Amino acid sequence: MDLTSIKDPSFLKGMSNAQLEQLGEEIRSFLIEKLSLTGGHIGPNLGVVELTLALHKCFDSPKDKIIWDVGHQSYVHKILTGRACEFDTLRQFKGLCGFPKRSESAHDVWETGHSSTSLSAAMGMAIARDLKKEKSYILPVIGDGALTGGMALEALNHIGHEKTNMIVILNDNEMSIAPNVGALHNVLGRLRTSGKYNGVKDDIEWLIKKIPAVGGVLAATAERVKDSLKYMLVSGMFFEEMGFTYLGPVDGHNFEDLFENLAYAKKIEGPVILHVITKKGKGYHPAESDKIGTWHGTGPYKMNTGDFVKPSFAPPSWSGLVSETVRKIARKDERVVAITPAMPVGSKLEGFASEFPDRMFDVGIAEQHAATLAAGLATQNMKPFLAIYSTFLQRAYDQVVHDICRQNLNVFIGIDRAGLVGADGETHQGVFDIAFLRHVPNLVLMMPKDENEGQHMVYTALKYDEGPIAMRFPRGNGLGVPMDETFKQIQIGTWEILKDGRDAAILTFGTTIQMALEAASEMESRGLSVKVVNARFIKPLDGDMLSGILEDGMPILTIEEAVLQGGFGSSVLEYAHDHGYFHNVIDRMGIPDEFIEHGSVDQLLEEIDFTVEDAVRRLSILAAKKQQRA
Amino acid sequence: MDLTSIKDPSFLKGMSNAQLEQLGEEIRSFLIEKLSLTGGHIGPNLGVVELTLALHKCFDSPKDKIIWDVGHQSYVHKILTGRACEFDTLRQFKGLCGFPKRSESAHDVWETGHSSTSLSAAMGMAIARDLKKEKSYILPVIGDGALTGGMALEALNHIGHEKTNMIVILNDNEMSIAPNVGALHNVLGRLRTSGKYNGVKDDIEWLIKKIPAVGGVLAATAERVKDSLKYMLVSGMFFEEMGFTYLGPVDGHNFEDLFENLAYAKKIEGPVILHVITKKGKGYHPAESDKIGTWHGTGPYKMNTGDFVKPSFAPPSWSGLVSETVRKIARKDERVVAITPAMPVGSKLEGFASEFPDRMFDVGIAEQHAATLAAGLATQNMKPFLAIYSTFLQRAYDQVVHDICRQNLNVFIGIDRAGLVGADGETHQGVFDIAFLRHVPNLVLMMPKDENEGQHMVYTALKYDEGPIAMRFPRGNGLGVPMDETFKQIQIGTWEILKDGRDAAILTFGTTIQMALEAASEMESRGLSVKVVNARFIKPLDGDMLSGILEDGMPILTIEEAVLQGGFGSSVLEYAHDHGYFHNVIDRMGIPDEFIEHGSVDQLLEEIDFTVEDAVRRLSILAAKKQQRA
Repeated sequence: MDLTSIKDPSFLKGMSNAQLEQLGEEIRSFLIEKLSLTGGHIGPNLGVVELTLALHKCFDSPKDKIIWDVGHQSYVHKILTGRACEFDTLRQFKGLCGFPKRSESAHDVWETGHSSTSLSAAMGMAIARDLKKEKSYILPVIGDGALTGGMALEALNHIGHEKTNMIVILNDNEMSIAPNVGALHNVLGRLRTSGKYNGVKDDIEWLIKKIPAVGGVLAATAERVKDSLKYMLVSGMFFEEMGFTYLGPVDGHNFEDLFENLAYAKKIEGPVILHVITKKGKGYHPAESDKIGTWHGTGPYKMNTGDFVKPSFAPPSWSGLVSETVRKIARKDERVVAITPAMPVGSKLEGFASEFPDRMFDVGIAEQHAATLAAGLATQNMKPFLAIYSTFLQRAYDQVVHDICRQNLNVFIGIDRAGLVGADGETHQGVFDIAFLRHVPNLVLMMPKDENEGQHMVYTALKYDEGPIAMRFPRGNGLGVPMDETFKQIQIGTWEILKDGRDAAILTFGTTIQMALEAASEMESRGLSVKVVNARFIKPLDGDMLSGILEDGMPILTIEEAVLQGGFGSSVLEYAHDHGYFHNVIDRMGIPDEFIEHGSVDQLLEEIDFTVEDAVRRLSILAAKKQQRA
Repeated sequence: MDLTSIKDPSFLKGMSNAQLEQLGEEIRSFLIEKLSLTGGHIGPNLGVVELTLALHKCFDSPKDKIIWDVGHQSYVHKILTGRACEFDTLRQFKGLCGFPKRSESAHDVWETGHSSTSLSAAMGMAIARDLKKEKSYILPVIGDGALTGGMALEALNHIGHEKTNMIVILNDNEMSIAPNVGALHNVLGRLRTSGKYNGVKDDIEWLIKKIPAVGGVLAATAERVKDSLKYMLVSGMFFEEMGFTYLGPVDGHNFEDLFENLAYAKKIEGPVILHVITKKGKGYHPAESDKIGTWHGTGPYKMNTGDFVKPSFAPPSWSGLVSETVRKIARKDERVVAITPAMPVGSKLEGFASEFPDRMFDVGIAEQHAATLAAGLATQNMKPFLAIYSTFLQRAYDQVVHDICRQNLNVFIGIDRAGLVGADGETHQGVFDIAFLRHVPNLVLMMPKDENEGQHMVYTALKYDEGPIAMRFPRGNGLGVPMDETFKQIQIGTWEILKDGRDAAILTFGTTIQMALEAASEMESRGLSVKVVNARFIKPLDGDMLSGILEDGMPILTIEEAVLQGGFGSSVLEYAHDHGYFHNVIDRMGIPDEFIEHGSVDQLLEEIDFTVEDAVRRLSILAAKKQQRA
């Protein structure tokens, strides 16, 4: 059928299993083709084709609420709810969002991006339903990876206790993004291989009857045995213990199995876990045979071969530069260990992991534990490198404050994907970290101007032994600059003058240095000389240099690819006023007070007036103000 | 014995059980007496007297690492490690900390205050031990309440998977601070009442042999039955499923039982959960009979009667004012529901809970879930009131950003204990919330000047339907001002002039208004007229009023009982520079960039130069600067 003609999922009701299978194949082909051009989360979506069809056939969205945990697996849902025609613009500026978006469709009842929120949201919706005495099904769809996130377990604990009606679809593909880890994963593994329990009930009853009646202590034990058997063998014990009815395992690519179990789940009072086994990348060989997570989310690829479309040359990625530098240092300093919350591939820690398997810890989707684990290691004189994306570090804010910084422990936090990240959009922009870290006592926060300075900063961080130190670095690749052969330490709290000037000063760091240099060059051509400072230490500031600039009376423009409220520019304002410089003209350029959607980074920056031209315009105004005053 | 003569716990090795029991009673008497004068966490500590003695007898601290989760139960440990003589200064300025403190003793290997961090820390220490090929026992002591915190569950998942050697002491007293909730609590309840499993192994073997041999499908089932029996009946299933060896339940007040099980635990490879049942408040009748958590932490009390020493008159508490106002509004608006993460008593929600049991949700120690649950409710047009302490809201930072504010949902966050909290010290000071919330788009953040304005703000928050709104309020009691009979809405983003003036302006809010008025009065006596503004909206600012003040060229002093970096004062600086006011003299008074220890709030404020005199001094400097320029 023409998928773009679908308006809503109601047409599924009348379809036979054979028709659904046919439709599933069409959706797969559509996704494989469309995503080969746009990129996107191909693996997760190919895995949930039948599951999504089954949910929309068996339930009435949006009255029944399907809540996609993380949300990158919602493409099939988007197709079935009338958005197939928008897939050419997937994850592009002003185009279809790669995650559920309430403004896109009434069927998107909850927005996601970060993991493990679906059960809490589902509980909120279920409570509201019950208070309003409405009838509907609440259907969170959560992966086995997301289930290990602490807040999902907090929610399980609450839901199981309250016995609230909901059907939790546990989409078990044995992966989070990388292959899954953790004891819960082992629990699921046992369930997966155990065969279905539902059918064996009669056998158990028979067996129980065969247990002989006895007296004394043994009688009590026998009673326990009987209870336990009933309890255990009909169910996934872990979930039953948590107050859920466990159903499964269900073949997530078999409509008959799905329908039978969904129908059964509908009849059960209280919360149900429906354990559905799916295959990530199902139906597309390159994705299906992926073992490490390469096909979780991709850029464009050649549909026939599965080769990724890549530029002919690219400088090393920032993640790779940082992780490989940590690896080199780890060869000489055996105190160095690496921690990742489920991002070994994204953080390019494969090399470190293969060289130092005992010193590499993938803790699963568990940012809070990852941060405090690092703190625990640091109390024992280890040098933990916590590799974490800026946006996911938000989950560990309290642990950074309370455990790492309050105890002033030597943890090196590598803040990956700092700044705008592009296609993943507003849930993933790494723009808050400066504002949520700058006020935390004891923390050093820095950002390098290029990968050569980056390697020296990593070295500096792992040599530093006076407390926690964090380095932000952007998504994507370095600049391709020459690399020094030997590492050197950079003095904490020192900035660097990249270009001297008299009429104004730009203070910036990281990715925006290039823009500052271009703006300064443009100003030069207009006869104004602009100083450009690599303000590589966001905290502490370089007080000597900053005081000098303030003393000179130069107008200052701060530039940061981060939120303006409470950001680096604010710290410059604070410094100026704290040190009695009340008359300097200071302007701040950065991310405004709003969530920034998806699109290419360049498009997004242009949208928020964050370009070389904007910098030039601001500098011109500043220079004019200075002249007025002179 | 003279407890103050204890230098370290080594003397315990030679003591008999009878002697230990005697010592336990002496420690109890000591605590009951000392805490009657200082206040403190009496209930938790009376509950762990025998457990702490047993741990220090059976293990060698600090080589073996005892990690106190939350840490308020570490008093007995402090006595046994040479600090009995300091109990007169408990929780007082420059005195003994109420939580483990590494600077106090080598036996305090990990600092706590917030819940649920001990397992992650223990895992870090255990990994470090194993990498260094050292031998020691790692002993996190975690309550059944703290176990429901997401990060503890994340850690369980990691530890159980890695099979790391450690002995987790699960101190099960059926309470977090309030009585415990959650499915895990039910799991523990079943274990508590089930009797010890260890002894029944032989019986089980016998029973298994009696199961008849059969063929076909039934044979496979019979095999499963046998496996399950072995697996289940010798252990706490939930924990075994998570990869731990379960031991217990153990009577936490019986030395013989404790010693036997600790000895057994030492021999087991891999992680062990030792389930110890204790009684909060054990041995002191008023505390032991406490059912709701009143005796968790207290002020001074009369030792003989257990009556609390309270001032003869106190205005209503802030927590009570806020919760009771929510309750009144809930009578007319059935969309209003209340959520607390395990603090129904601290947040004074008992009245709401008894009147609206179906609309009150105590989710246990689970701040992340609490916040996203509120967001889920708000998607369904409910009006959730999330009652949470400032310091614990740190745990839900990502949920506030990603789930509540990004989706712009109508959640009312009541930020309790904002500002310095006093005796609980640096882990509990509510001083970061402005800095970690101000940069989050869509959020309104306010703080009332007194409880009358407070009730109107609560009304305003629950009427507001344009997104999330938060109200900070301090620990302790209101001012005792007259209360209006009817609620009124306060216009969002409006400030209020409390006292007019020409020579300088103080912008402040909440608890520091009184101080501002006193400073202004003192300045008046020196011939300078100072305007005092109730800057009750921290975000958004009152742009009209602020522009007017800036336009007048008045020097400005901002005062906030919160961190200065990125705080309210910074937002005033940002506003001034963003709007072209580059020449105003602006000074900011607040909490410096360091963690603030325990003590009375007044002592702490004096220590950081945050008094009326300091404000006067700063105002005088500002006024002089203005005169210089005039």
